[in-house]
Amino acid sequence: VPKRVVIVGGGFAGLATAGALEGAGLEVTLVDQHDYNTFQPLLYQVATAGLNAGDIAYPLRTLVRRYGSTRFRRGTVDAIDFASRKVQFEDGGAVEYDYLVLASGATTSYFGVPGAEEHCHAIYTLDDALGVRARIFSQLERASALGPTPAGLTIAVIGGGATGVEMAGALAELLTLALSTTYKELDPALARVVLVEQRERLLGAFDEGLARYALRQLKRRRVEVRLGVEVLEVGSEHIVLASSAEGAVDLPCGLVVWAAGVAAGKLASCLDLPMTRGGRIVVDEMLHVANRPEVFVVGDVAAALALRTNSGAGRTSSTGGDAGQAASLLPQLAQPAIQAGEHAGLQILRLRAGQPLEPFVYRDKGTMATIGRRAAIAEVPLWRPRSGASAPSVRLRGTLAWLAWLALHIVTLLGRRNRASVLLNWSWRYVSWRRGPRVIIGG
Amino acid sequence: VPKRVVIVGGGFAGLATAGALEGAGLEVTLVDQHDYNTFQPLLYQVATAGLNAGDIAYPLRTLVRRYGSTRFRRGTVDAIDFASRKVQFEDGGAVEYDYLVLASGATTSYFGVPGAEEHCHAIYTLDDALGVRARIFSQLERASALGPTPAGLTIAVIGGGATGVEMAGALAELLTLALSTTYKELDPALARVVLVEQRERLLGAFDEGLARYALRQLKRRRVEVRLGVEVLEVGSEHIVLASSAEGAVDLPCGLVVWAAGVAAGKLASCLDLPMTRGGRIVVDEMLHVANRPEVFVVGDVAAALALRTNSGAGRTSSTGGDAGQAASLLPQLAQPAIQAGEHAGLQILRLRAGQPLEPFVYRDKGTMATIGRRAAIAEVPLWRPRSGASAPSVRLRGTLAWLAWLALHIVTLLGRRNRASVLLNWSWRYVSWRRGPRVIIGG
Repeated sequence: VPKRVVIVGGGFAGLATAGALEGAGLEVTLVDQHDYNTFQPLLYQVATAGLNAGDIAYPLRTLVRRYGSTRFRRGTVDAIDFASRKVQFEDGGAVEYDYLVLASGATTSYFGVPGAEEHCHAIYTLDDALGVRARIFSQLERASALGPTPAGLTIAVIGGGATGVEMAGALAELLTLALSTTYKELDPALARVVLVEQRERLLGAFDEGLARYALRQLKRRRVEVRLGVEVLEVGSEHIVLASSAEGAVDLPCGLVVWAAGVAAGKLASCLDLPMTRGGRIVVDEMLHVANRPEVFVVGDVAAALALRTNSGAGRTSSTGGDAGQAASLLPQLAQPAIQAGEHAGLQILRLRAGQPLEPFVYRDKGTMATIGRRAAIAEVPLWRPRSGASAPSVRLRGTLAWLAWLALHIVTLLGRRNRASVLLNWSWRYVSWRRGPRVIIGG
Repeated sequence: VPKRVVIVGGGFAGLATAGALEGAGLEVTLVDQHDYNTFQPLLYQVATAGLNAGDIAYPLRTLVRRYGSTRFRRGTVDAIDFASRKVQFEDGGAVEYDYLVLASGATTSYFGVPGAEEHCHAIYTLDDALGVRARIFSQLERASALGPTPAGLTIAVIGGGATGVEMAGALAELLTLALSTTYKELDPALARVVLVEQRERLLGAFDEGLARYALRQLKRRRVEVRLGVEVLEVGSEHIVLASSAEGAVDLPCGLVVWAAGVAAGKLASCLDLPMTRGGRIVVDEMLHVANRPEVFVVGDVAAALALRTNSGAGRTSSTGGDAGQAASLLPQLAQPAIQAGEHAGLQILRLRAGQPLEPFVYRDKGTMATIGRRAAIAEVPLWRPRSGASAPSVRLRGTLAWLAWLALHIVTLLGRRNRASVLLNWSWRYVSWRRGPRVIIGG
């Protein structure tokens, strides 16, 4: 009888596990609440109307079909019975496992800021991104129809990490373009993008020179960057900011995008496993939770205190409950998720073969962020260092980094049709300066 | 002071009016509750996961920008004050007019069939189409996860007109493909598409030979066509059908698509204007409502008893409350909407110039319908006849008609980016036989 593996979550981590187990003669079931994988690095482009939602979603069934014996089960996991090794679904069904890989991702964490959960828009899921898009254009239409209000055309982005910087840059470009072409009746001076970061600098995980470049590029796009500023409260049409220089300040705004941190999802919270303050499940260097050798936890949901090969250059989450441990925790990004997912798959094969387990070692392949058209930053190690060692990095910025960013995202996107569609939309946009699918559907 | 024209509705009819008024020195305001135009002839392809929703939606603001002085106002019309010539919006705003063109479209009409409004899925709007798509894949996922139920994999399509035939054909192709590739664990025999038509033949508006061809093509795709069958009732997991041969029969089904008719929208119903039994606003041959020379009504919302140049070949709605008048009412299709919209615009220019009005004459340019891959029918007049006369038609079917259908829809689609994207999706699908954007978003 082949051993049964259940992978909960069809994101980067879960798919990497499924890939590693391909053709190994195991009975693999991939579980997700959606029937598609979301290419999260491009969510902000869906939110700012540069891409279709369908362009960055790829059917999980099409993916697992490639992995011979892998099955897909759509369903929301209700509970996991570790004792009898069973995953229970909300729809009443269940699947049993010999090995479990938990890769269920995270949700947005608002760190208890009053009103934030109620009034902020997150950008972690495809529905989030479509919600942000609908809100932006609804505000513009409202201002055009009834006249602008002080709040209406101001957008606040909370969090100066890579997600916040990319979002703020894309919003600034979108608003500039929209007001100069399709909303000519509105005064361009009324449209403001405000980027708020608690620390004194942007992009804490990047080199300081690159972060300063990003700051200059944002300012050129008329993004108001507020460093060393905390969010005290979020209301329906305003936020309250606080800094040591100015004290508490009220900022009217029509949309607040929260890009300041993620925490464990609903599922992880109810599993009764040890968690960090930021809400991630604590794993050992084998990616196990305590006393469960048949359970691996990978991706955003895992707090891996793992060894890494290039410790200086890794990006960490910009703010958040895990900040105290940031130096040793893996960042919640695609690369750590993919590598850990693959590692978990390989360990399951070793377990089956009776071989000893290997600790997970993260290999830093570099990080990138885009501020806007022809403006990106990248930090890439010059060579792949041996375990424990570190390699010097090459730092890129400007057009070259931007072209590298475009190429990398096209290449890593799932599905040839999606790749062609994204290429089409980007060519269209960057050549004609027009926006792509910028309509409010289901909003 | 330039005269003010308000056009309510950004569909085929409304846009044709805006186009006719371009550059005439009038102050034109185009009003719609959405910020996009929907290319309705391809809605069924969005519903059956062949196209992205964004591919057939085009931003109205981008459109009106081309028409110099035309403005766009997004808003849901709450009431129209004909006496003071004012259009009132739900959001509290209002616009005044000298001339009004009402092109607000229709909604699905269920003709009082019990349970139909509650349980049927329509395909008149983009949200409708996305709802159908989500339902299809949810049913497949459910059957895969928990085992198939008798109802789960049966889809009923009500209405054997062009919309119903296109929908049934596309559904059959989608299910065949899905079960042979991505849902291999399901028995293909369980997936059924049942097309129900009240009359004894399909496609009442087409030539009988073409209708027989369509029937054969549907059967080849394993669509079960039930002619002379009425729908008595619709439940959550079944419908009740009745025919003189079999009496009342209960059919378990997981999805019921209603393609049997449209009626006036909410707005038209509360305007206190004379309406047909099918719920369309009665207009005279000038496209006026009684005693309102400054108001034109065009498109699906208008019941135009208009003259037509090629009276034999026009397609009429397949079933419906207006059936008794079908011979003289214009069908609710793109061509009559475009021509009437343009006519209304030209009449406004004549009114302003003090010239007498001209009656609206519909010029039949032919009709088309697609059953599936390499199978379509088309009926096109050989030449454009003079008013009142009629021209013989050429009838096409099979691959040639299908290629003509593809070409016509690509050419008439709004926006070059959308055209390129649809071309990409179709090439992909018809070359590789794979489906395009088939994921459940927001479902």
